[in-house]
Amino acid sequence: MTTPTSTTMKKLINNPDNVVKDALAGMAAAHADLIRVDVDLQLIVRNDAPVQGKVGIISGGGSGHEPMHGGYVGRGMLDAACPGAIFTSPVPDQMLAATKAVNGGAGVLHIVKNYTGDVMNFEMAAELAQADTIEVESVVIDDDVAVKDSLYTAGRRGVGATVLAEKICGAAAESGMNLKQVADLCRKVNANGRSMGMALTSCVTPSAGKPTFDLGGDEMEIGIGIHGEPGRTRMKLGTAAQIAELLVNPILDDLPFKSGDSVLAFVNGMGGTPLIELYVMFNEVNRILKGRGVTIARNLVGDYITSLEMAGCSVTLLRLDDELTRFWDAPVLTPALRWGA
Amino acid sequence: MTTPTSTTMKKLINNPDNVVKDALAGMAAAHADLIRVDVDLQLIVRNDAPVQGKVGIISGGGSGHEPMHGGYVGRGMLDAACPGAIFTSPVPDQMLAATKAVNGGAGVLHIVKNYTGDVMNFEMAAELAQADTIEVESVVIDDDVAVKDSLYTAGRRGVGATVLAEKICGAAAESGMNLKQVADLCRKVNANGRSMGMALTSCVTPSAGKPTFDLGGDEMEIGIGIHGEPGRTRMKLGTAAQIAELLVNPILDDLPFKSGDSVLAFVNGMGGTPLIELYVMFNEVNRILKGRGVTIARNLVGDYITSLEMAGCSVTLLRLDDELTRFWDAPVLTPALRWGA
Repeated sequence: MTTPTSTTMKKLINNPDNVVKDALAGMAAAHADLIRVDVDLQLIVRNDAPVQGKVGIISGGGSGHEPMHGGYVGRGMLDAACPGAIFTSPVPDQMLAATKAVNGGAGVLHIVKNYTGDVMNFEMAAELAQADTIEVESVVIDDDVAVKDSLYTAGRRGVGATVLAEKICGAAAESGMNLKQVADLCRKVNANGRSMGMALTSCVTPSAGKPTFDLGGDEMEIGIGIHGEPGRTRMKLGTAAQIAELLVNPILDDLPFKSGDSVLAFVNGMGGTPLIELYVMFNEVNRILKGRGVTIARNLVGDYITSLEMAGCSVTLLRLDDELTRFWDAPVLTPALRWGA
Repeated sequence: MTTPTSTTMKKLINNPDNVVKDALAGMAAAHADLIRVDVDLQLIVRNDAPVQGKVGIISGGGSGHEPMHGGYVGRGMLDAACPGAIFTSPVPDQMLAATKAVNGGAGVLHIVKNYTGDVMNFEMAAELAQADTIEVESVVIDDDVAVKDSLYTAGRRGVGATVLAEKICGAAAESGMNLKQVADLCRKVNANGRSMGMALTSCVTPSAGKPTFDLGGDEMEIGIGIHGEPGRTRMKLGTAAQIAELLVNPILDDLPFKSGDSVLAFVNGMGGTPLIELYVMFNEVNRILKGRGVTIARNLVGDYITSLEMAGCSVTLLRLDDELTRFWDAPVLTPALRWGA
């Protein structure tokens, strides 16, 4: 058999250079009922886009975080996603093409995770779209409480709240809200959402063929970024209960969340952690929140914003009100998230 | 920090002995709208069970394959699941309790994966239930074409087709079919479904704390079982295209699938493989099937029957007809699979 690259990288791929395009071709074949895929341009568009009179919503960023964002394209969530190379920002041309493809005359919202490349390229794409008389609003998500600045970020990183913002804003756009209203709602999600992640192992990017960072056999990294950016601290492996405290307490203290608050609790797998462990973590998160008088009214448990095959998890809490809850509950029909539709 | 066990095992757990119960408590907290969980007895029951006049469907087996089976309890799929310890059969008492909890007077179907412990214990539970005047039918799933006999199995192992059988039979029971009809439908799924899996890495069971088997840094195991049982052959790592051929061709030849057939293609992750790689694999599977004149009419891509954090995948093909397609498409509302409801 032909070994794709070195013997240290074990992946179900053909060639490190073609992973994103091969996966996009697979998505196109699997989900033709929901999405159109331009494999060359690296663009995933909702099947019925542009929807006339509806605010269009696009997002994008480096690949390697699947199902984010392409898995969230469909009715009630994103109108398009533009994936870059693995852990690499998409280019303004992709974002502009996505913006044009979903503009139904009511303008387009760009949901941007706070990484320097993404922010810069989305700004350029917004200017180009506006020059083309498409109204654009941009909202930057920066929910990660772990660190102030980071390897690829000025300010806080954008992580789990992005998934929630895409779902909630997608429902709002579907309900007929205008561009300003959907953008304000997105800012509200970001203002009320906080996250923190951790890693048990590094991931291996196909182009590098070796671990992004080194972590000892008995160590974990608390506050990890979704590209393996350093977190707050590296320490000896802890129990699920201890890890949950290390993630949840900084989140609770930051907003701050208060006794009596009702939240959506999102326990996310980084890609290489089995579901059984995510439920163990959810149980610990639930225990801590109960002790603080915070009620989990909605939840999401699974792999939704990943870092290739990294083992680890992140916790996101979103303080809910009736509006956010209603839009969270609304029907959604995408490759990765579907209910009520 | 307290290290849960040795430094070679990195898991989000508290204690190797409590993983299953902690995860069940997490599931109970996360999905109270869909399921009731008896953590002590290790039993997950649909919230509104028993449904009077409906055939009840239960399944079960060792834990470590999440979301199977507990994630499939809910409207349109299973009425109950009884998880054993990790990679260990549940006991007859669990199965009997599940059978009683879901019996709405129309009898209960046991869907049993072909592992010696599962088969033996489900047989005992069926006898006990029948002595209690509950009508029981049992169907053993044995869709894995990799090997004739295996470490824990006489005959072929039951793998991916189990997920499809649970979905399809769940919809059939919901539609009002009687016990004999639902059991016959389950046999039809098994007769028309074939699977084969492969691993890039071993998994580590919490109780063992070390890899279940050893695999070289440049090796893969073709035909792996979901507990790490040996497959057909161990060989040098291949590309996604090569691996797809090694899995799909034995499946196609076995039934055999023929040009003109319409199939459900299920590309399943073993737990530690990122979604982007599963779409790469789906693309290759689609390419091979097209070349053989087989049409993918339905598909499922993701982690549905796993082996803890094993890296690898399996492919299941189910030959479809109108009846199977209709029941596959019917609404389902469970923690892990939901659409149209």
